[in-house]
Amino acid sequence: MRSKLFFVLLMMVNIVMGQKTLTLEDVMSGGNNWHNLRPENLYTAWWGNTPLETTADEVKELLTGNSLISVERFNEIAGEKVAFSGHNILLPYGDKTIAQVRTGSKRVQIDWKQGNVVWSQPIPDGAANQDFNLKSRHLAYTVKGNLYVLTEEGQTSQVSQDGSVDDSNDIVYGQSVHRDEFGISKGTFWSPDGQQLAFYRMDQSMVAGYPQVDISQRIAAVTMDKYPMAGETSHQVRVGIFNVASRRVNWLELIGEPDDYHTNISWAPDGKTLYIFELNRDQNDMRLMAYDTETGKVRKQLLQERHDKYVEPMNGLLFLPWDSSKAIMQSRRDGFNHLYLLDVNNGKLEQLTYGDFEVQEVVGFNTKAKCVLYLSNAMDPRTSCLFSRNLAKPKCTLIGAGEGVHSASLSEDGQQVIDRYSAPTLPRSINLYDTKTGKGKNLLTAKDPWQEQGYKIPEITSGSIKAADGQTDLYYRMVKPVDFDPTKKYPTVVYVYGGPHAHNVDASWHWCLRGWEAYMATKGYLLFILDNRGSEWRGREFEQVTFRQLGVEEMKDQMEGVKFLKSLPYVDANRMGVHGWSYGGFMTTSLMCTYPDAFKVGVAGGPVIDWKYYEVMYGERYMDTPQQNPEGYEKCSLLNKAKNLKGRLQIIFGYNDPTCVPQHTLSFLRACEDAGTQPDLFTYPGDGHNMFGRDQVHLHERITRYFDDYLK
Amino acid sequence: MRSKLFFVLLMMVNIVMGQKTLTLEDVMSGGNNWHNLRPENLYTAWWGNTPLETTADEVKELLTGNSLISVERFNEIAGEKVAFSGHNILLPYGDKTIAQVRTGSKRVQIDWKQGNVVWSQPIPDGAANQDFNLKSRHLAYTVKGNLYVLTEEGQTSQVSQDGSVDDSNDIVYGQSVHRDEFGISKGTFWSPDGQQLAFYRMDQSMVAGYPQVDISQRIAAVTMDKYPMAGETSHQVRVGIFNVASRRVNWLELIGEPDDYHTNISWAPDGKTLYIFELNRDQNDMRLMAYDTETGKVRKQLLQERHDKYVEPMNGLLFLPWDSSKAIMQSRRDGFNHLYLLDVNNGKLEQLTYGDFEVQEVVGFNTKAKCVLYLSNAMDPRTSCLFSRNLAKPKCTLIGAGEGVHSASLSEDGQQVIDRYSAPTLPRSINLYDTKTGKGKNLLTAKDPWQEQGYKIPEITSGSIKAADGQTDLYYRMVKPVDFDPTKKYPTVVYVYGGPHAHNVDASWHWCLRGWEAYMATKGYLLFILDNRGSEWRGREFEQVTFRQLGVEEMKDQMEGVKFLKSLPYVDANRMGVHGWSYGGFMTTSLMCTYPDAFKVGVAGGPVIDWKYYEVMYGERYMDTPQQNPEGYEKCSLLNKAKNLKGRLQIIFGYNDPTCVPQHTLSFLRACEDAGTQPDLFTYPGDGHNMFGRDQVHLHERITRYFDDYLK
Repeated sequence: MRSKLFFVLLMMVNIVMGQKTLTLEDVMSGGNNWHNLRPENLYTAWWGNTPLETTADEVKELLTGNSLISVERFNEIAGEKVAFSGHNILLPYGDKTIAQVRTGSKRVQIDWKQGNVVWSQPIPDGAANQDFNLKSRHLAYTVKGNLYVLTEEGQTSQVSQDGSVDDSNDIVYGQSVHRDEFGISKGTFWSPDGQQLAFYRMDQSMVAGYPQVDISQRIAAVTMDKYPMAGETSHQVRVGIFNVASRRVNWLELIGEPDDYHTNISWAPDGKTLYIFELNRDQNDMRLMAYDTETGKVRKQLLQERHDKYVEPMNGLLFLPWDSSKAIMQSRRDGFNHLYLLDVNNGKLEQLTYGDFEVQEVVGFNTKAKCVLYLSNAMDPRTSCLFSRNLAKPKCTLIGAGEGVHSASLSEDGQQVIDRYSAPTLPRSINLYDTKTGKGKNLLTAKDPWQEQGYKIPEITSGSIKAADGQTDLYYRMVKPVDFDPTKKYPTVVYVYGGPHAHNVDASWHWCLRGWEAYMATKGYLLFILDNRGSEWRGREFEQVTFRQLGVEEMKDQMEGVKFLKSLPYVDANRMGVHGWSYGGFMTTSLMCTYPDAFKVGVAGGPVIDWKYYEVMYGERYMDTPQQNPEGYEKCSLLNKAKNLKGRLQIIFGYNDPTCVPQHTLSFLRACEDAGTQPDLFTYPGDGHNMFGRDQVHLHERITRYFDDYLK
Repeated sequence: MRSKLFFVLLMMVNIVMGQKTLTLEDVMSGGNNWHNLRPENLYTAWWGNTPLETTADEVKELLTGNSLISVERFNEIAGEKVAFSGHNILLPYGDKTIAQVRTGSKRVQIDWKQGNVVWSQPIPDGAANQDFNLKSRHLAYTVKGNLYVLTEEGQTSQVSQDGSVDDSNDIVYGQSVHRDEFGISKGTFWSPDGQQLAFYRMDQSMVAGYPQVDISQRIAAVTMDKYPMAGETSHQVRVGIFNVASRRVNWLELIGEPDDYHTNISWAPDGKTLYIFELNRDQNDMRLMAYDTETGKVRKQLLQERHDKYVEPMNGLLFLPWDSSKAIMQSRRDGFNHLYLLDVNNGKLEQLTYGDFEVQEVVGFNTKAKCVLYLSNAMDPRTSCLFSRNLAKPKCTLIGAGEGVHSASLSEDGQQVIDRYSAPTLPRSINLYDTKTGKGKNLLTAKDPWQEQGYKIPEITSGSIKAADGQTDLYYRMVKPVDFDPTKKYPTVVYVYGGPHAHNVDASWHWCLRGWEAYMATKGYLLFILDNRGSEWRGREFEQVTFRQLGVEEMKDQMEGVKFLKSLPYVDANRMGVHGWSYGGFMTTSLMCTYPDAFKVGVAGGPVIDWKYYEVMYGERYMDTPQQNPEGYEKCSLLNKAKNLKGRLQIIFGYNDPTCVPQHTLSFLRACEDAGTQPDLFTYPGDGHNMFGRDQVHLHERITRYFDDYLK
C-alpha cells in the first residue's frame, strides 16, 4: 500500500503564477482578509437520518433544498429573538419536528410543524460547565466549585456542598480533572437515560498555586493557579453518581492511591455499571474497573494493561447499539492503536484491526449492518481515511477517497455518512456516502481560493527521510520560496513541534501547510517541517523512544533533517533558522543550545525549559518524576545548556501562560544572564499559551521580522 | 564668576593616544578589570580632631603615619577574630583610645591603650534597621514589623506590640516611611543623649499590594509588596517617642490628615522638643511643627511654606553647637535652595546664603570660628565646592579649589576638613585644610589610570546650549568616538535621565562620564548627554516647569540637543539613538513615541509608562493625582503613544522592580500589541530597579548590541 502511494508523496502541489503576494492579513486566522481566503464550504448536520444544510438564515434538507425552519420563523414561534443563525439551530430528535436553540441565558425548543414552544428554560446565573441531556432535558452545571442539577421541570438540586466558593479552587466539582490529559475534557457524565449523573470531585487544596499576574487591573492583581508540578504533590480525584429521582449521591469506592488517575468514564447502556480506566500516578499500570452505580462498589476489574514505560488510556468504552454486553475499546497493546471488542461479562478481548498503522478515531456504528466506522492512517501514515469494519467479518472496507485527511459525521442509524476531506491539491471535498455500499455523491469540491484570487503560491512538497535510527521513515513538508530559482541559495527555516499527540505533516490541503509558511515563502525563505520520532499516529515504539529523555532523540531526527537540507544545493547552510511553539519552543531552544553551530537564528514560543516546571500528568508520563529520573531531568534541562547559546534566539511567551508557566522562560533568562549569553525576549500580557486574533498577526509579524533581521 | 569659568567649561579633556581598547570588563563596576582602573585613593577617617588613614591592616594617624590599632591587635585584644579590615574599625570617641568593630553578630569596643575589651554585645537574631547610639550604646532595631531597644546593659524592650509579624507588612515600626521620599532613609531617631528614641509607625494595611513573583523558588512564589499608586489609598504614619529609662512610649499628637507626610525629624539639643516638617498629601502646604516630647502635644507651629506647585522639605534642622536656640534650615523659598538660620523661640528666619545657585549639602560647623560649612554650585552650575559662612559676618568663603565636585569630612571641632574632589581632567584630589584659614596640604593627587595603563581615551567635552524656552542654559557632555575624524559622520547616542533630583553632567572627572559611554566611543559612537529643565541643582523654576506634565518640557529640551547635534557635521542625523533608565527610560520611550522620526533606535530601562502606576509620594508631587489632573496623566501616558512607535525600541526591566513596577512595561507592551507596533523587550528575573555586578555587564553588552544591530 505504501509503495502505491509513493508518487503521491513526492508529487508537488501545482505551481501557479499568480500576481498577488500573500500578506499576514491573508494567511493568519486573525488577519483581516483571512476569511476571504478559506476554501468554499457547506455547513451540514443531521436530523435523524436526514442530511441537513444550515445557512445563516435557515436549516434545510440537504438533498431536496426544502427549508425546515428559518431563523425568522423560529423567533416568531418563540415569541422572542433567540435564534441568530441557522448554524445554531439544532434538530435534536430524529422522530420529532423539534428545533432547539440555546442562548447565553436560555434553552428553547419549538415544534416547527405545530408552531408552538414545546419547552423552554432559563439558564441559571453563572452556570458554567453546562451539560444538557437531550433525552431527559436535565441540565448539570457548576457555579464556582459546586455542582448543580436543574431538572426538565425546573427543580434545582445542589449536588455538592463543600466545593470552594472563594477563589481558591481548592475543591471543585463537575469540572474536567487531571488537567485535561487522558482525553478528559469535562467533569459530568449523564447516564444514557439522563437520570443519573456521574461527576468528578477534585481536591486540589494540597496543590501549590502558581502566581499569575493580571496587569490589566488598575493595580496588578494575582491569581494563584493550582498547578501541580512534576514530582510535587498532585490533586486527588473521586467520582460520585447523582440520582436525579432520589436526589442522592453515591460515591464510588475507588481503589488505588489518592493521586491515581480516573479516566474515560463510560456508562453501561442500562445505567447500572460505570466503567473507569484507572491508572497509577507512575502511569505504567492501567486497570479497567467496573463499578456498581447503586452501591458504589467495585463490580470487577475487567482488564489490566502494564508497560515498562507508560500506558495512556485515551478513549472510553463504546457499547454496541445492538449488544449491551460488548463494547469497542481502543488500545496500543500490540504497539499501535487498534480497535478491540470487549466482552464486559468476562473481559475477553477480540482485536478488530491489525497492522502497522493507527486507528485515529471511532466515528460510530452502522446499526443495521453491524459495522463500526473509524478513521485510520492505514493508507499512508500521513492520511486519515474512513473505514468500516463489519463485526461479523474480519474485513475493513475503505469508504470514500483513500487519500487526504477526513472527518466524518454519521446519520442516526449509521447508514449514511457525510465525509469531509482535503488532500494536498484539494482544498475541500464534501461527500455523502452509503456506509454499506460506499456509494454516494459529491456535495462540494472547493477550488483553490489562493489560485482563484490570483495569489502567488509557493511550491509545497512532502517526502520522507530516515530517522537518526537509520530505519524509521520520517515525513517532511518543504515549502519553496515563490519564484524559486534552483541555482540560488535560500535562507531556510525549520519549523518544529516534535512532541507527542501532534504532527505537522499530513496529506491534507497543502500538506497541512501553516499560513505563515506561505507568507515566509513569499519573502524568499525555504521552509522545512519534519515530524520526528515521538510525534503522533506512528505507534508506541515511535513515540516512546523519547521516554525519560524528552528532546534527545527528537533533536537527533531534526538534525537528520538538517543534514538532508544541507545536501540540497538551494539551501543556504549558513543561513538556517528554527522556530517552534510550546514543545516546539522547547525543541527550538534545545536545538539552539545543543547544536549551536547548526542554526543561526531561532524563535521559541512558550517553551518548556525544564520539565520539573511542567505539570505532573504530562511531565511524569514521559519523564517520570525528578526524584525517579534526576539524570534525565538534568540532561534535558535547558538551564544547563543556556551557556551554549551562540546564535540569535528570541523567546516569546504569553505572560499569563497557564500551561508552560512563565517560570520556564524566566528561569532560562536567569540562566543565560548568569552564563553571559544573550537570548532575546518578548511577551504578550494577558495571553495564555497561544496568541489569537490580532495578537496572532502581531506575533507572526514579530517572528518574521526576527528572521528578516538576522537570517535574511 | 560664570564668565571666568567659560574656558574651563569648553576645555576638553586631553586626548591620549593609548594602545589598549576599553572593554565592558574595564568600564563597568561589575566588570572583572574595573577595580584596576579606579583612580588611586586614600582612605581617611577622623578620631576626634586627628585625621586618620585606614588600610586593610590597620588604622593610623594620617599625618605621622603612626599606627593606632591594627586588625591583628584588635582581634588579639578581643580574643576572637572580629575585625577583618582597618576600614571597618571605628574610633568613635575623640577623647578615648577606644576602637569599635561591628560584625554581623556583635559589636565590640576595645581600648587599644589598655589592651582590654571595654564593652561588647551580641546583636539580636534577625535585627534589622539597626540604629546604634554611640553615646548611650543603646541599640534600636526591628524584627519583622516591631521595634525593639537593647540597652547598653543588655536589657531588651519591645517598644511596639502590634507590628505585623506575618509577611503582610501591614503595620511596621522603626522603618523608613513615605517610600524614602523627602530625604527619609530610616525610621528611628535617637535623642542627642541617646536616652529617647523617636520612631515612625506606619500603617499600610489599607495600601494595595503589588504582586512580585520570585521565580527562583521551586515553584514560583508571590510577595504582595505594599505599593500606594498615585491617586490610590496611601499609608498612615504616626510618630512615637520611647523613653529608655521609663520604658514608656509617648505618641505625638500629630495635626493634619492621616495621610500627611511627617518628614525630617530633628531633636532639640536638650531632648525636650521634636521638630517635624509636616506636609499635606497635596504637597503644597508645609508646616514646621515643634512637639513637646514629654506630653506629645504641639508646642508650636514655627513656620509654614506654601507653593502653587509643591513644597518639598528635604532636610531637617541642624542646631548650632554653641546656641541651642538656633538651627540651620534649608529652603527653596526664594527660588533656590539656601541656608537659613532659624530661631526656634520665635520662628524668625535669617537668610545665610543668596544667589542663583543652590546649596547642596551642609557639611557641619567650625564650632570655634562659628562657621557653617556647606557645598554649593555657586562657582558654576556643574560644580560642588566647599564654602564656609561665618554666622557673624555675611560672607561666604571658598575653601579649597573652586572647581570640580567635592565632598568634605570635618574634624570633630570643624577646624579641619578632609576635602576630596575631582575635576574634568583630575581623577582625584584629597586635601587637608584648616577651615578658617583655608590653608592646608595635598594628601593625594591621582593620575589618570586609563592614561597610565595605555588605554585609548575618547575626547570628552562639556558645553551649554539654550533650553527650549530660548533663555535657560543647559549643560551637556559630549563624548567623541576614539580616533575621531571630523570629516566622518558618526552614529550618535543620546543618553538621558531628565528627572528631578538628579543630573548627568557635572565638573567631576571626565565631566561625570559613565564608563559605558567610553566603551561606546571605542566602538565608534558619539555620545551626548544633556541635563534638561527639570533636573537638579538649578533652582525651583527650572525644576517646576515640568509640573503636571512630566516629560513634555524635558523632551523639548532634549530635542534642542538633537537640533544642536544635527548642526554638527560629524553627527549622522540618520543614525541617532537614545538610551536611558528609570526616568530616563520614560524619557527614551517618550521621545521614541513623541518624535518618532528623530531617533532610529532606543533602549529604555525600567521606564515609567503611565504615572498612575507610580507611587503616591513622587508621582503626586509632580503630577497631582489622576483624579485632580486627568488631562496631564493622559498627555504623559505612553499607553496613548504606543501607536506612534516607529523606530527600534528595546525596553529592559528588572523582573522584580519594586520602584517602577513591571506593570509599566507590560502595559506598554499590551498597548503596542493592540496598536500593532513592535517594541523589543528584555528582563532580569530577580533584579530590582537596577542591575548590579555581572548583570550590569550583561545588561550593557545587551544595550550595546542593540545599537550595533540597528544603529551602526
